[in-house]
Amino acid sequence: MEDYHKPDQQTIQALRNIANRLRINSIKATTAVGNGHPTSCCSVAEIMSVLFFHTMKYRPDDPKNPNNDRFILSKGHAAPVLYSVWVEIGFLKESELMSMCQVDSTLEGHPTPKQQFVDVATGSLGQGLGMACGMAYTAKYFDKSSYHVYCLLGDGEMSEGAVWEAMAFASYYQLDNLLAILDINRLGQSDPAPLQHHVEKYQRRCEAFGWHAIIVDGHSVEELCKAMSQQRHQPTAIIAKTIKGKGIPVAEDKMGWHGKVLSKDMAESVMRDLQSRILNSNKRMYPASPIEDTPPVSLRNVRMPSAPNYKTGEKIATCKAYGMAVAKLGRYNERVVAMDVDTKNVTHSEIFKNEHPNRFIECYSAEQNMSDCLYTCLTACLSCVYVAGVVCVCVSGEDGPAHMGLEDMAIFRAIPTATIFYPSDAVSTEKAVELAANTKGVCYIRTIRPETAIIYNSNEDFHVGQAKVVCQSKEDQVTVIGAGMTLHEALAAAEQLKKERIYIRVIDPFTIKPLDAKTIIDHVRATRGRVVTVEDHYYEGGLGEAVCSAIVNEPSLTFQRLAVVHVPRSGKMSDLLKIYGIDRDSIAQVVRKMLSSSANAK
Amino acid sequence: MEDYHKPDQQTIQALRNIANRLRINSIKATTAVGNGHPTSCCSVAEIMSVLFFHTMKYRPDDPKNPNNDRFILSKGHAAPVLYSVWVEIGFLKESELMSMCQVDSTLEGHPTPKQQFVDVATGSLGQGLGMACGMAYTAKYFDKSSYHVYCLLGDGEMSEGAVWEAMAFASYYQLDNLLAILDINRLGQSDPAPLQHHVEKYQRRCEAFGWHAIIVDGHSVEELCKAMSQQRHQPTAIIAKTIKGKGIPVAEDKMGWHGKVLSKDMAESVMRDLQSRILNSNKRMYPASPIEDTPPVSLRNVRMPSAPNYKTGEKIATCKAYGMAVAKLGRYNERVVAMDVDTKNVTHSEIFKNEHPNRFIECYSAEQNMSDCLYTCLTACLSCVYVAGVVCVCVSGEDGPAHMGLEDMAIFRAIPTATIFYPSDAVSTEKAVELAANTKGVCYIRTIRPETAIIYNSNEDFHVGQAKVVCQSKEDQVTVIGAGMTLHEALAAAEQLKKERIYIRVIDPFTIKPLDAKTIIDHVRATRGRVVTVEDHYYEGGLGEAVCSAIVNEPSLTFQRLAVVHVPRSGKMSDLLKIYGIDRDSIAQVVRKMLSSSANAK
Repeated sequence: MEDYHKPDQQTIQALRNIANRLRINSIKATTAVGNGHPTSCCSVAEIMSVLFFHTMKYRPDDPKNPNNDRFILSKGHAAPVLYSVWVEIGFLKESELMSMCQVDSTLEGHPTPKQQFVDVATGSLGQGLGMACGMAYTAKYFDKSSYHVYCLLGDGEMSEGAVWEAMAFASYYQLDNLLAILDINRLGQSDPAPLQHHVEKYQRRCEAFGWHAIIVDGHSVEELCKAMSQQRHQPTAIIAKTIKGKGIPVAEDKMGWHGKVLSKDMAESVMRDLQSRILNSNKRMYPASPIEDTPPVSLRNVRMPSAPNYKTGEKIATCKAYGMAVAKLGRYNERVVAMDVDTKNVTHSEIFKNEHPNRFIECYSAEQNMSDCLYTCLTACLSCVYVAGVVCVCVSGEDGPAHMGLEDMAIFRAIPTATIFYPSDAVSTEKAVELAANTKGVCYIRTIRPETAIIYNSNEDFHVGQAKVVCQSKEDQVTVIGAGMTLHEALAAAEQLKKERIYIRVIDPFTIKPLDAKTIIDHVRATRGRVVTVEDHYYEGGLGEAVCSAIVNEPSLTFQRLAVVHVPRSGKMSDLLKIYGIDRDSIAQVVRKMLSSSANAK
Repeated sequence: MEDYHKPDQQTIQALRNIANRLRINSIKATTAVGNGHPTSCCSVAEIMSVLFFHTMKYRPDDPKNPNNDRFILSKGHAAPVLYSVWVEIGFLKESELMSMCQVDSTLEGHPTPKQQFVDVATGSLGQGLGMACGMAYTAKYFDKSSYHVYCLLGDGEMSEGAVWEAMAFASYYQLDNLLAILDINRLGQSDPAPLQHHVEKYQRRCEAFGWHAIIVDGHSVEELCKAMSQQRHQPTAIIAKTIKGKGIPVAEDKMGWHGKVLSKDMAESVMRDLQSRILNSNKRMYPASPIEDTPPVSLRNVRMPSAPNYKTGEKIATCKAYGMAVAKLGRYNERVVAMDVDTKNVTHSEIFKNEHPNRFIECYSAEQNMSDCLYTCLTACLSCVYVAGVVCVCVSGEDGPAHMGLEDMAIFRAIPTATIFYPSDAVSTEKAVELAANTKGVCYIRTIRPETAIIYNSNEDFHVGQAKVVCQSKEDQVTVIGAGMTLHEALAAAEQLKKERIYIRVIDPFTIKPLDAKTIIDHVRATRGRVVTVEDHYYEGGLGEAVCSAIVNEPSLTFQRLAVVHVPRSGKMSDLLKIYGIDRDSIAQVVRKMLSSSANAK
């Protein structure tokens, strides 16, 4: 505080003028396109003005400069005020703003990274602060750079648990380069927010979560300048008491105005009034330049230094192979970072932690915050490699259904751009880790806890979307597709059936998304349309449906799917595989039936 | 406090004895089956003893009695200590405990409602308090009954945002019948919990969230008795400082013992030691009887009082029809309750709120807590009807992808026991609401914001798993399946194609899960295997894959799927439907192509 110099009167007036111009443009644009949240923009006009024209250090002509302070609009529905800021800066044209939300505009209803000045998409409430934490952690501990991270939240989203996960994370890791501004405008979408205008209650919550918290009048440019200039020794929250719709007399502090645009007439009258408050000021405001101390980072070609070092037949759990692979990848790539949620002794990411303690982030039992942090460590800072590895316990164990994620593939398959690896041994797991590090978008590696035998040679080549045929003969009558434990069950079934002179072809898809449709179709044809999938997953949305989609237009299919129908229960893995009909015996049985009914059909 | 009588010395000793017997049985059982979390059981032994034998009022022979106090073990991994309590009560046999987690035991690794004394499954951290909130709200506002709700949490899960959503909810609704006990045993699964033994920090957080918070020594039976007996005027948290592994000398307060069982030898030595601390006490402890003031509730046959009142051709958004239907259902059924997360002006649940303000729960922007509350309002209290209705905005609007849930069907399809309704007009929406109220398991009703025309008569009969053929002629060449907006696009395509003398059959599946495979197969056969699905959802896991799974074994299919491939963007609905290829023109085009290539094939 000691080094705080109050801005001169000209500066104050210039910032006030900017705030009103932001209001005018937000109203103008939302009325022009008939969409948006003008009242949510108006409550933050002074906050945005002070942030972008007094507090933040960045290059206005180069929004992606790595030295820039970062900004996340967690209350993404106030997008028009952010766009108006970049019009004010001169980076966007007013005409672009006036066609926002249209199908040919990059300015969407909520911020997306299609815009150069946006690092992360927001609009789903509660995610911004966690993403800001990921950036601030990166700045402080990886980049060791001076840039700060600013995050503007609405009071509605303060009800989201994810916000409090992020609050706890930020204080635990002493993210003193993180500033959150809470826009306490009292009104939510359909009701007042639960704490209304009780800013002292917000302050108490923030302080209890280890933050420094300052209450200000969110429409006072002076108070905002002062609060934002305070030297910080811990994460700081500015609790800004504001009026929703400030500057729009009919809507100020009134319910029923969320997400409502002004009529053309009303907008014109409000804008005239706002214009009249803009007083002459010769002062033109420029943001201060950032300190140029962010190190250059290259993320291309993150490669393993050597081939996997396993012997065929050796037994190792893929989850352990995952932990070892990530640690190995980190050995030769400084920007490989691992995160976990207090499960590192099960996911085996503790192997990484032991080798690279400074690049391991323990996020504790706060999964939402970890994903938000992960996301920004990857994208916004352009500075970390991200490998998503989750141990899926599946039908393996006494812990019971709470610890069995049998819907995970359905969820990840439905994410556009996602890649799902489902390695079946340690060699392919290590390859999956390497490939994931070089694949864009969300990568999910499904690993399991039971030990499985190594089936691939260390020099085997793997590619995203390329399946492997792991058991094959000229006499094969049925194609069986399994992954993880069920691939090994399929191989055991093949052995069993061989004794009966029944031959099956066994395919390891390696990636479930994208699925190697071509290879699968070729082999399905070779076995006269007879195909069985077997998976440690519910029937819907997993391997079986992926294969089904790939082959449905093949003529004369005989397709059987083995998967888990009910919520599973506690028990030994072998018992459970049997009960849910996804073990070797069940596979052998379905193959026999398939062949006997096709014999009958002849 | 004034009415607090300190328990006599005999009672104290008896409670201590019980605590040690709980320890002994927890150790004995986990060692016997080689699975479980004995150290997590030992830290809560005194808490459980005092709760079940001093504080809670319930009928030990009738765990499901509606007047009983409720208990939720949010730290579900301490299941063996809960089972040991019911052995101590005499409800379970020791032999049952000793075979827990086995494939033929109802005592699973984590509590499940298969056990009579368990209302809700726990084991995934952070969900218990939200479920306790649902129970406490029901007790106070719906049942208006005396039973209290007790929830035992671990310190690991205090990092979960969902816990803080529940904390805020409980204080906002002044749930003075709710008591949370926090087992602060310092150690998480793979590391100490972030706040370690700083009980005062937990206290500050709880107080900031509006709770009364009392710090106690969690191994002092006296302190626990006193704290739990305090009269409560707001939700109360007992912050119990405990030692993980208390009573197991080698494991006390030590890392590396989470989820680890004792060897047989070690277990025997520890149990001998614990046994020696059990002092003679003639006092046998019985729980106090509950006050019998919970009203009887019948939930059978929740019916609409009259048929839908819409005219064919009239236009109304299904999300609005949903709001009106729930309000109507509530008019004749006292136990119909609605919840929302500050979106009631969009989901139209505000119609319900206006009619039945005492049965509407505003949960604010805390979706996890709402689902947890919902769940217990439905199940544990056996006292509310639950209809899950969510407005899926889909490719409809300028708000952009943050507001488009195009993966929802994939997620809900992968939940065993779930039912997915996807009504396409107001009549079928009203029928869906009525059916959902009488269907077990999670029901998800996908409704949309754009207005769609009524296509069904009010007396049309709907059933779960029964599709409707909405356009049919003898000359039909292709079957088209759509739902919601895309059903109407399919009907428009049918009109368009009719002019070209191309006839298509249009099917409304009504429920996506279960899907009416029989009807679909019949009509696919009638159109010679030619079928098109069109959906406002990503390709994976939705309508298209559901249909694919149903028909894959049909001979000679020509199956085309229209769905959204990329993350969508802002724009007008009609533009977006066209861009993503799920509009009437795209449907017509795919039908024409299908027919021309099958003509070429001839």
